Amino acid sequence: MLAVGRELLIGRTPNTNAHWMGKRLARMGSMLKEVTTVDDDLDEIASAFRAAIARSPDFLVVVGGLGPTPDDMTLKGVARGLGVPVRKDAKALRLIREHYAKRGMQTVELTPARIKMARLPVGAEPVVNPQGTAPGVKMATGKTTVYCLPGVPLEMRSIFRRSVEPEIRGVLGKMHRKYITLKLEGILESALAPVISAEMRKHPGAYIKSHPRGVREGVSRIELDIAVVGEDAMRADEEGEDIAREMTTAVRAAGGTAKSAGGIRG
Amino acid sequence: MLAVGRELLIGRTPNTNAHWMGKRLARMGSMLKEVTTVDDDLDEIASAFRAAIARSPDFLVVVGGLGPTPDDMTLKGVARGLGVPVRKDAKALRLIREHYAKRGMQTVELTPARIKMARLPVGAEPVVNPQGTAPGVKMATGKTTVYCLPGVPLEMRSIFRRSVEPEIRGVLGKMHRKYITLKLEGILESALAPVISAEMRKHPGAYIKSHPRGVREGVSRIELDIAVVGEDAMRADEEGEDIAREMTTAVRAAGGTAKSAGGIRG
Repeated sequence: MLAVGRELLIGRTPNTNAHWMGKRLARMGSMLKEVTTVDDDLDEIASAFRAAIARSPDFLVVVGGLGPTPDDMTLKGVARGLGVPVRKDAKALRLIREHYAKRGMQTVELTPARIKMARLPVGAEPVVNPQGTAPGVKMATGKTTVYCLPGVPLEMRSIFRRSVEPEIRGVLGKMHRKYITLKLEGILESALAPVISAEMRKHPGAYIKSHPRGVREGVSRIELDIAVVGEDAMRADEEGEDIAREMTTAVRAAGGTAKSAGGIRG
Repeated sequence: MLAVGRELLIGRTPNTNAHWMGKRLARMGSMLKEVTTVDDDLDEIASAFRAAIARSPDFLVVVGGLGPTPDDMTLKGVARGLGVPVRKDAKALRLIREHYAKRGMQTVELTPARIKMARLPVGAEPVVNPQGTAPGVKMATGKTTVYCLPGVPLEMRSIFRRSVEPEIRGVLGKMHRKYITLKLEGILESALAPVISAEMRKHPGAYIKSHPRGVREGVSRIELDIAVVGEDAMRADEEGEDIAREMTTAVRAAGGTAKSAGGIRG
């Protein structure tokens, strides 16, 4: 994900879009590989876009900066990154006109600010935005499919669910994720470390990670996440449960306690 | 900022560290220029570190991955990015020992997992962590000062306030920021766009940005942020207030309303 917007860099707005999309992808058995956040600045956007594309991800989602105001410059920045011009797109213009019409503004004037939302990089196509004015934008470069989505969470989520997710599922195939969180007490993270190492050697495909949650009344608390991803749901479930059981036994042997946080997500 | 940790990419943990640090820097009159988030993976960390350093920022803060568990690999990743080995640091080891001693664990064994937290890139020095075990790490490369801080918010904030902030202030000098938020109603963002453009031409150093907040009972709502940064506090205050007044007048002329959100932060 490439997130564009100064509000994300000055502590005005937390990047809830990255959080939401990360969770959504992880549940599908995929993952956000990297998130980069940059300022509303043509060169910053173009250069971060080029860097992201150079890593050849399957998908790059650019979020924010599609609106009518002068700080909205994502499409121009992406075009600069691709080395192509922007051009007024007839279909995008029609989508914008339809959006205003639906809101009872049949006669709204297509001012330069409104037309700007329809100026797409050459080779890109608009994507319906069911919740707002600025259309999403889709294009392909190398092996990467690029989507540009508005930063307003309601609009971003709506386009992502409707247009991006089905395409990702198509590439990914059917994947299943077993996710278990254990709450540990009375074991230091530094004492847990060799236990995790041993378990990771036993289950090389699995993800096992501890999150220290501080000390309460002298007792160290840790949340331990276990995730197994695979095509075979039953196998992923079984391996996840095996790891949870083995870790619980090992933590108890080291003098701590472990219980399931009920955080078992599909 | 370079944030390290899969929990940030799978929607497990929102990146509150970036939000906190961004706000803190903005209030000082500085800014987070870019935030990159990567997985717990040596190559990912090394390559994102090199990319960040190549942009020659004054400061690079790497957050997360300093602990004792196998997924904590930030120092090794940074060392790889710099092309230097990691080496056991005597001062870091002493800080770790002192931390355990303070918690009444004078006899704690320095296991490989605990020693790992003292294995710093050659040329780096440890920084006191008043709230946790793993020391912060400081180093210089090119014109950039690099800090590596733990991802646990309490520890990150404590080291940032105590060690990083004073150094940034030293480079920055005394800066003042005037920040005003106006709440607008009854004007579309696309109608506001030319008003903002005109105001930006009049105040080229200022930052003026609109955040659409949806439509309530058919009335479009927008939050408008105005920020002016400068060495002269009175001048920044005056220019910020001028812009707010001028924007209010223009929005009213366009048929909308504007009132201060009281969001005036130092």
